[in-house]
Amino acid sequence: MFKTIEWTDDGVRMIDQTRLPGEEVYFTCRSYRDVAHAIRSMVIRGAPAIGVAAAMGVALGVKDSTASSAAELRAEFETIAEAISKTRPTAVNLFWAIERMREVFERGLAGRSPDQSGGSPGGGFDAGGRTAPFMNATEADAIAAVKVRLIEEAQSILAEDIAANEAMGRHGAELLGDSASVLTHCNAGALATAGYGTALGVVRAAVAAGKKIEVFADETRPFLQGARLTAWELTKDGIPVTLITDNMAGHFMQGGKIQAVIVGADRIARNGDVANKIGTYTLAVLAHENKIPFYVAAPRSTIDFKIASGTEIPIEERSPREVTHWAGVATAPEHVRARHPAFDVTPHRYVTAIVTERGIAREPFTESLKSLFPPSKTR
Amino acid sequence: MFKTIEWTDDGVRMIDQTRLPGEEVYFTCRSYRDVAHAIRSMVIRGAPAIGVAAAMGVALGVKDSTASSAAELRAEFETIAEAISKTRPTAVNLFWAIERMREVFERGLAGRSPDQSGGSPGGGFDAGGRTAPFMNATEADAIAAVKVRLIEEAQSILAEDIAANEAMGRHGAELLGDSASVLTHCNAGALATAGYGTALGVVRAAVAAGKKIEVFADETRPFLQGARLTAWELTKDGIPVTLITDNMAGHFMQGGKIQAVIVGADRIARNGDVANKIGTYTLAVLAHENKIPFYVAAPRSTIDFKIASGTEIPIEERSPREVTHWAGVATAPEHVRARHPAFDVTPHRYVTAIVTERGIAREPFTESLKSLFPPSKTR
Repeated sequence: MFKTIEWTDDGVRMIDQTRLPGEEVYFTCRSYRDVAHAIRSMVIRGAPAIGVAAAMGVALGVKDSTASSAAELRAEFETIAEAISKTRPTAVNLFWAIERMREVFERGLAGRSPDQSGGSPGGGFDAGGRTAPFMNATEADAIAAVKVRLIEEAQSILAEDIAANEAMGRHGAELLGDSASVLTHCNAGALATAGYGTALGVVRAAVAAGKKIEVFADETRPFLQGARLTAWELTKDGIPVTLITDNMAGHFMQGGKIQAVIVGADRIARNGDVANKIGTYTLAVLAHENKIPFYVAAPRSTIDFKIASGTEIPIEERSPREVTHWAGVATAPEHVRARHPAFDVTPHRYVTAIVTERGIAREPFTESLKSLFPPSKTR
Repeated sequence: MFKTIEWTDDGVRMIDQTRLPGEEVYFTCRSYRDVAHAIRSMVIRGAPAIGVAAAMGVALGVKDSTASSAAELRAEFETIAEAISKTRPTAVNLFWAIERMREVFERGLAGRSPDQSGGSPGGGFDAGGRTAPFMNATEADAIAAVKVRLIEEAQSILAEDIAANEAMGRHGAELLGDSASVLTHCNAGALATAGYGTALGVVRAAVAAGKKIEVFADETRPFLQGARLTAWELTKDGIPVTLITDNMAGHFMQGGKIQAVIVGADRIARNGDVANKIGTYTLAVLAHENKIPFYVAAPRSTIDFKIASGTEIPIEERSPREVTHWAGVATAPEHVRARHPAFDVTPHRYVTAIVTERGIAREPFTESLKSLFPPSKTR
């Protein structure tokens, strides 16, 4: 079995998703800059996996630091966080993971472990920690300790992500019939997460529960995550999968071949608007028109409670060359203008339910998401 | 300027659309079998262009015949018609063209030109002609004459197609605003017709009328007619075009970037249901949801008055390899199951208007199409 991402003594090791399904090779990031590069170039992708990578990138950067004072290390932390945060703008897991690492970093430097912090309102970062004096350790000891804590925290984020996916699977599997064809888009599987998957985690859990599930996988142009990654990981698991081009999904829905659509998410606003891979909005509209339930599976780390609606989500525009070329071969005339928004926003009115690790949210999402994740318990 | 298809002394010459946009090369069909192969392998594609190719294929096959009796030639005609009719099932223009050629063939063998036929009810094929005695010519003369007539008829079909496209352009251009971004799918341009185009004919006419038109072109997986052909022919004409992947269309509609959708058709039922390139149904649903007009431009030869609705239209299923490979490179794991319906059916309720060479049809299409093309004048 492959590992999407793991911490090793040599650095952060990840399966190179740009080379699947042709080659199953691993890339080891030996510096935080390697991690930033891996995220930007989509060696690793998928919102939860990007979150884990960001956390490990921060841990690696701080581990490699030769800073001899807390002030110097704090400056380096900001340089590292800045480099990693600039890689991709849409998936909020990236920023969530960096914030979580910053909190651990500051508490560590302050000589306090998180569980000694006494819990500031909302559980957020305790700004006072930034200037708190060292209480229990010399500066050098604190630096050494915080390096270890950051590695542990990144590994916790990874472990929690797998656990969240398994919990989502249990909740989400109940939404699927005993025998169902499920359409998915992009890759919201083990490769998009620390393991198991969000949308594909629901599929895996349903299969494990004895349900007869077939998957229709959109190839997901231009990067072909569906063709290259979803088809690959489902085939490896022996789950029946049929590959289609994105523009065929409507035809199969219209023909009654699809009983549910289930996708992951890159960022969910507190009203339930969902940013996900380009093409998701189209599937949601088609599902709505054909009276097929449209489900989104995503962990707490993908929900951005700071924004009221999807209009506030920045949509990454990637290189048009990813549209006009495939495998180095031009698919269009030279110099033709092309656009490449990598994500779109699905208004919450098209979303039947959001599957989280704490249970299922339905309209009104502003209420249901808040009640699953009350503010005092969010982190 | 390129020619999509033309009759030459060497055979039927066509631009090889499988090699665009990389290479602008021509393929000359030296037998009707070559023509059948060219249609099947998509050297030529697009419903009206397929109609012209079918007619020229019939003319070429009959021209090459060494039959010395009318009975022998009639048997050969059926062999030729059968081979050509089996190439692609969805575009009705193919069958329409073969029927029209059969009518000319039978009248020619009967020694009567079509305008001497006296007009059987409906103007359709005069079944009596099949067994009518030779009246004005010896058998050898009749055979020689019918060979010429078939070539002339095929050339008429080509000329009429261009004229129909220009007329559609004039009618359709009035539907577009003075400044508009128009989304199109697949290629319904000069390359899909004898010249000028159906959907792109409307765009060309609007541009010629001084309107400021920009085109968004769906790349149109899996065969990439939008990326390879539409982007190519619009660039050649200096009409601004932006290439997007199929799954981006909804995002740009949602964002208010598209003022109209205009596509061609492969077959239209008498109730206005439209079979067209896979993905068209999706665009129609998205346009409906975003309150954007959805127009279909197609000539009489694409309307199948024999069928009541789109459910009667056969949908071609092409090789899954066209989905799983591009330019010889696999885009998916080996042996993954894939589907490849090449067309879908858009129910008429999503169609704002059908642009024909006789004018604009709107709901109820059963009435409006019939009144544009009254039964006695159809052929």
